[in-house]
Amino acid sequence: MIQPLILDGKAAAKVIRAELARRVAELEVRGVKPGLRILLVGSDPASQVYVSSKEKASAGIGVSACVERLPESASFADVAGVIESWNRDPAVHGFIVQLPLPRGIDAYAVLKLVSPARDVDGLSPASLGALASGRPGFMPATPLGIIELLWRNGITVSGKRVVVVGRGELVGRPLASMLLLHGERGDATVTVCHSRTPDLGAVCRTAEILVVAVGRARLVTGAMVSEGVVVVDAGTNSIDGRLVGDVDFATVAPRAAAITPVPGGVGPMTVAMLLANTVKAAEQAAGKREL
Amino acid sequence: MIQPLILDGKAAAKVIRAELARRVAELEVRGVKPGLRILLVGSDPASQVYVSSKEKASAGIGVSACVERLPESASFADVAGVIESWNRDPAVHGFIVQLPLPRGIDAYAVLKLVSPARDVDGLSPASLGALASGRPGFMPATPLGIIELLWRNGITVSGKRVVVVGRGELVGRPLASMLLLHGERGDATVTVCHSRTPDLGAVCRTAEILVVAVGRARLVTGAMVSEGVVVVDAGTNSIDGRLVGDVDFATVAPRAAAITPVPGGVGPMTVAMLLANTVKAAEQAAGKREL
Repeated sequence: MIQPLILDGKAAAKVIRAELARRVAELEVRGVKPGLRILLVGSDPASQVYVSSKEKASAGIGVSACVERLPESASFADVAGVIESWNRDPAVHGFIVQLPLPRGIDAYAVLKLVSPARDVDGLSPASLGALASGRPGFMPATPLGIIELLWRNGITVSGKRVVVVGRGELVGRPLASMLLLHGERGDATVTVCHSRTPDLGAVCRTAEILVVAVGRARLVTGAMVSEGVVVVDAGTNSIDGRLVGDVDFATVAPRAAAITPVPGGVGPMTVAMLLANTVKAAEQAAGKREL
Repeated sequence: MIQPLILDGKAAAKVIRAELARRVAELEVRGVKPGLRILLVGSDPASQVYVSSKEKASAGIGVSACVERLPESASFADVAGVIESWNRDPAVHGFIVQLPLPRGIDAYAVLKLVSPARDVDGLSPASLGALASGRPGFMPATPLGIIELLWRNGITVSGKRVVVVGRGELVGRPLASMLLLHGERGDATVTVCHSRTPDLGAVCRTAEILVVAVGRARLVTGAMVSEGVVVVDAGTNSIDGRLVGDVDFATVAPRAAAITPVPGGVGPMTVAMLLANTVKAAEQAAGKREL
């Protein structure tokens, strides 16, 4: 048994943040301070943690991040009002609506209001439609982070059989769409499976690269993967106060060529990609087009 | 060797058109005449044929269809002007831009202008974004026709392993997205493969249902499919003046449980679904919501 390569998202995110900090410094020379806004509605405890890690990471690279908090009782009109002001504010280069929203506020209707030029979460229907049309603008942070983490570890998806477990709008669906784009970070053969897939193990065993994003703790076990697989675990489940992924690390790692830890795998990459999108938005606003 | 079930799109489309004609008659009682517009730019010979079959089918069920022709030399502004007038015209319930457009006119930029409420081709970024967000509005006619044809032949996709060959924006990608929706016409385990898939045959042989939409004559042969597969051929290639599909019917049919012919399979269903979307658009405009 060979030890798998650990796909260290924390380390990769640190390198990315250093690269982004240099770009922010260049923008500052030109008088532009990248501005990110985060809308947090209600008091979901996990959201509080995510938002504060996004704030901290922003500050660390010189991005000015502000959080607008609305109470659980906020109306759709309250939320829409904030978004519409940010769509027009020249100091706001990008903004995100932290999900989930309280029941009674339709996230789809909210995301429809987000201007694609500032949609640094890449989750608005306009951004997803651009991706589906093969003309991606900002792409969702978690799938972007997954592809980036593989790329920085020398793992190409092009020409590979990638199995995505999970068909959610935030990770599984857009990831599949991105993996099918033309180019060296796409060109994969992609299978999407989910709760209605009869023999999940049989499908997972066909994967050269397996990405799991369903939100069920330790769903994927060692018997469900082939020897030498690359495993990316995008799950975040809280079990007895501990964060565990969708992959049973103890039984899967010994069979894997490479695997992400949870925590410290996909999570930090998601935040890094949000920052990357924000810096890119600021550069575009400053008339400097580069990725 | 058992004869496969022939998935007769011509027959299914005829039944659907009869159903739609009844709905059009009901609308007419209420003073509403469904109106479809088709924008045809340039003189692509295949497009001429497709457009005239759409006109004929519309007339057959009482939908008023008009074709607006622009020369090959038309500018983006000319195209945009037509779309913008149709977006506002109360007599136009739905319209389509016949693709491909002449070189030099960006189809994506054109489709961005189409109002989702009238996008009966379902190909605008807004419609594709709604689909990607799990909130489909009008869905693209060809993938819709494929799912409908299977459904009307008692073949459910739910829980099945469906392999889609082709990742184009018109068929492969939106079909994959639709097959992943929740519900009895979705819930499939979906694999998308394409020109960069190393061993296409090996992937195709995993399919219970195989859909081919790449535009390469007879790409899929008998050796590439498993015994008992259901095969849908969305290819239309002209060989020596004859229309042939992407599937080599002669070698695949003997191994298949069911298979579409070309012509007479997916093609007529595409036209029928365009009409279904148009009638639905007219019903919605008339304030009568039903599918």
